[in-house]
Amino acid sequence: MSYFDAASSLPLHPVARQALLASLDEGWADPARLHREGRRARMLLDAARETAAEAVGCRPDELTFTPSGTQALHTATAGALAGRRRTGHRLVVSAVEHSAVLHAAQAHERAGGTVTTVGVDRTGRLDAQEWRAALGAGCALACLQSANHEVGTVQPVEEAAQACAEAGVPLLVDAAQSLPWGPVPGDWSLLAGSAHKWGGPAGVGLLVVRKGVRFAPPGPADEREAGRAAGFENIPAIVAAAASLRAVRAEADAEAARLRALVDRIRSRVPELVPGCEVVGDPVRRLPHLVTFSCLYVDGEALLHALDAAGFSVSSGSSCTSGTLTPSHVLRAMGVLSEGNVRVSLPPGTDADEVERFLDVLPGAVAGVRAQAAAPAAAVPHAPAGRPEAPDTGTGRAAADEAGTDGAGLTLDARGKLCPLPVIELAKAIGTVPAGGLVRVLADDEAARLDIPAWCEMTGHTFEGREGVTFRVRAAP
Amino acid sequence: MSYFDAASSLPLHPVARQALLASLDEGWADPARLHREGRRARMLLDAARETAAEAVGCRPDELTFTPSGTQALHTATAGALAGRRRTGHRLVVSAVEHSAVLHAAQAHERAGGTVTTVGVDRTGRLDAQEWRAALGAGCALACLQSANHEVGTVQPVEEAAQACAEAGVPLLVDAAQSLPWGPVPGDWSLLAGSAHKWGGPAGVGLLVVRKGVRFAPPGPADEREAGRAAGFENIPAIVAAAASLRAVRAEADAEAARLRALVDRIRSRVPELVPGCEVVGDPVRRLPHLVTFSCLYVDGEALLHALDAAGFSVSSGSSCTSGTLTPSHVLRAMGVLSEGNVRVSLPPGTDADEVERFLDVLPGAVAGVRAQAAAPAAAVPHAPAGRPEAPDTGTGRAAADEAGTDGAGLTLDARGKLCPLPVIELAKAIGTVPAGGLVRVLADDEAARLDIPAWCEMTGHTFEGREGVTFRVRAAP
Repeated sequence: MSYFDAASSLPLHPVARQALLASLDEGWADPARLHREGRRARMLLDAARETAAEAVGCRPDELTFTPSGTQALHTATAGALAGRRRTGHRLVVSAVEHSAVLHAAQAHERAGGTVTTVGVDRTGRLDAQEWRAALGAGCALACLQSANHEVGTVQPVEEAAQACAEAGVPLLVDAAQSLPWGPVPGDWSLLAGSAHKWGGPAGVGLLVVRKGVRFAPPGPADEREAGRAAGFENIPAIVAAAASLRAVRAEADAEAARLRALVDRIRSRVPELVPGCEVVGDPVRRLPHLVTFSCLYVDGEALLHALDAAGFSVSSGSSCTSGTLTPSHVLRAMGVLSEGNVRVSLPPGTDADEVERFLDVLPGAVAGVRAQAAAPAAAVPHAPAGRPEAPDTGTGRAAADEAGTDGAGLTLDARGKLCPLPVIELAKAIGTVPAGGLVRVLADDEAARLDIPAWCEMTGHTFEGREGVTFRVRAAP
Repeated sequence: MSYFDAASSLPLHPVARQALLASLDEGWADPARLHREGRRARMLLDAARETAAEAVGCRPDELTFTPSGTQALHTATAGALAGRRRTGHRLVVSAVEHSAVLHAAQAHERAGGTVTTVGVDRTGRLDAQEWRAALGAGCALACLQSANHEVGTVQPVEEAAQACAEAGVPLLVDAAQSLPWGPVPGDWSLLAGSAHKWGGPAGVGLLVVRKGVRFAPPGPADEREAGRAAGFENIPAIVAAAASLRAVRAEADAEAARLRALVDRIRSRVPELVPGCEVVGDPVRRLPHLVTFSCLYVDGEALLHALDAAGFSVSSGSSCTSGTLTPSHVLRAMGVLSEGNVRVSLPPGTDADEVERFLDVLPGAVAGVRAQAAAPAAAVPHAPAGRPEAPDTGTGRAAADEAGTDGAGLTLDARGKLCPLPVIELAKAIGTVPAGGLVRVLADDEAARLDIPAWCEMTGHTFEGREGVTFRVRAAP
């Protein structure tokens, strides 16, 4: 069994377990009480705050423990926006933030605020020019992740923070994915983290608000945690979180170098081993332990089950696995293939043998899922080594030439069919039209907007544009 | 060492510890994931939900795990008020609710809503008639605790729920203090609880929303816990919480009977052993393990430290112990003495010897604190056994007769002095005026409003009223 879903959650680090057990007997009382049990709990809490603050690179009185990373982000967003409401009501976020940030942004919109979403390039990296432009008049807060949770791309936080400082806008950094690997650089104003992402227990998030940042905690008042996290403190878990962050950091550089090499191995081998596969995310400026790829003609959920049966636990940004009908907003913002999406995130301690076993198993798992879906084997392209990133064609409307081509070709009705079926049917149909011929695909699964253009790029056919649910594809000459 | 502050927090129940340790290895993964680690976590979460629902007396899909009891109350209040916003914007609460409810009520007022506070009698029990009247037009939600956390008085929840049902108003019950002892009776609509109050771990609250109750979760959307508790679930703690609730319930009846007898012993002996002491709260309709009393001329914080040094951990609703200058809102609503307040809440397993040792230690501790404060020993009344509850005199303005008595008497300036000093100075001064003479006390400590009338009742002097910071006291004839 290999658990390759570290970016979701990690098992308890041995130091976390030890600290948790040790503090169960000392940390259960109310730290606000004056009796000895209360004072003992308070001492543990204070010590944990100092440890965590040192790892984050902030003052202890700037750091609050919250019940989760999600709540840290929700509180950070609402509190900073409320603190700056006299300046403006506009929130700036990158398009690839964690859903906790995007949900907070939606709540801000429902409450009458506005949100500016800044795009990313095909590797998932922030568009720095667009970011700078977005920080103009009325901007109350800007949010940027330190590194993306789905594709591993590291964001230019220092540069973004510099732009924020120049514009006088506080920057909130979602550091959930990068905090185990090191402190966040740059002159940020607020920061959020989550202990179970570094091997600490669930139930502990970090919220840092730098001194001088205007902040008005949302919700009902509460005297605990500087009024920034309502409810009784979970001190044994907090102690375990702080102790394990320190322990993980002590091992971080060596472990990062080791895992980075394993991920490089996956990045280079997967496209060679699996035809019709695209590795996404920045190949260099990335988290050490995380790699994501997508496979043409593959149902993400079926592939997850096949890999699970083969002993590998991974996750997926494909629409079919999330219980919703929309593919990952991250892959959508990047404009890359979403079907058959697999995120591999290696936990500390993963060895090379496990990775080799994964590479042994993957091609068969993909082939099996393709066979089940009756994918057209002949249509699976072999990715050339070093294939350059395809340019972003958007929906390709500019390339469409309605007048000249509408007369001929084939129309394929894939409405009501879920991804990857529309692409599979397109791949089968394209062989039946002559070189340069037109196929119109009617497809209402939202993933098709991403996957049909991506398929065209990967197979050499031309995506000519979309009108409503009609996609126009011209067969390669 | 005896820990007598169970109502604040309990050490981990052995079953909770066992369940926590057992599920650390199984429950760390994301239960939303499809891989085996995720499915295993999901199974643990589902089983814990069934166990907890059975103990509460609700359907599993009505029960959500929150990060704390406080957050359960905040979410319950905001969600039910939002769900009923077309009906009205008025929230009804009892005057003796937990601060989490009162803070939620203040947040509701800040957002433009209104709050009706229903009073209690001198035992802390809800005024049922006032409650019924408050549920009229525009009432969106009513909140009542199942039992009071400071004085132990059990509230008439069934009767209150009946009144709510007749008025078509949902009832939120804060069951934090009573849930370990049994399910909440009556036809309530929402319920909140907190695991560390029954020996479960910190970090787990319960929120129950009955089917059919209109509820709009506040804050940013989140797909976890039916959208009612944002953030990654703390499954090992949830498992431990559910398992320990079941275990505690299995022992509840026997343990309640045992602790009830110990508390009866404290209730009867303390007034005999400690002169100038008043036991508060309903003597019969009360939590089995909790008793509260107040001591004239005693600084609550000093008494806590004295008891702590003697090996007893208790808590206090006196103003000096809370870091604020206002005495407990519960004691204030009851109109009883607040100075030298001590809450004793016995954890399960407390034995009779510990209670006898406490009764041995208490008189000396009180006397020591009084001596430090130079309290007038002669002025300490010996409470007659079975002294009837004093009638509620309010601020006594109606009893004042400005014209006839202003000519004579003594004025005592205790402004800027904190409780119990104004009462101590009054007790010293009263001996210097003739029988029937008048003492005016100038006192700006908020606790004086409670403690000067209470002192008069306990010592046989007459409280004639208050104008601003001036209290009029007539010496006993």
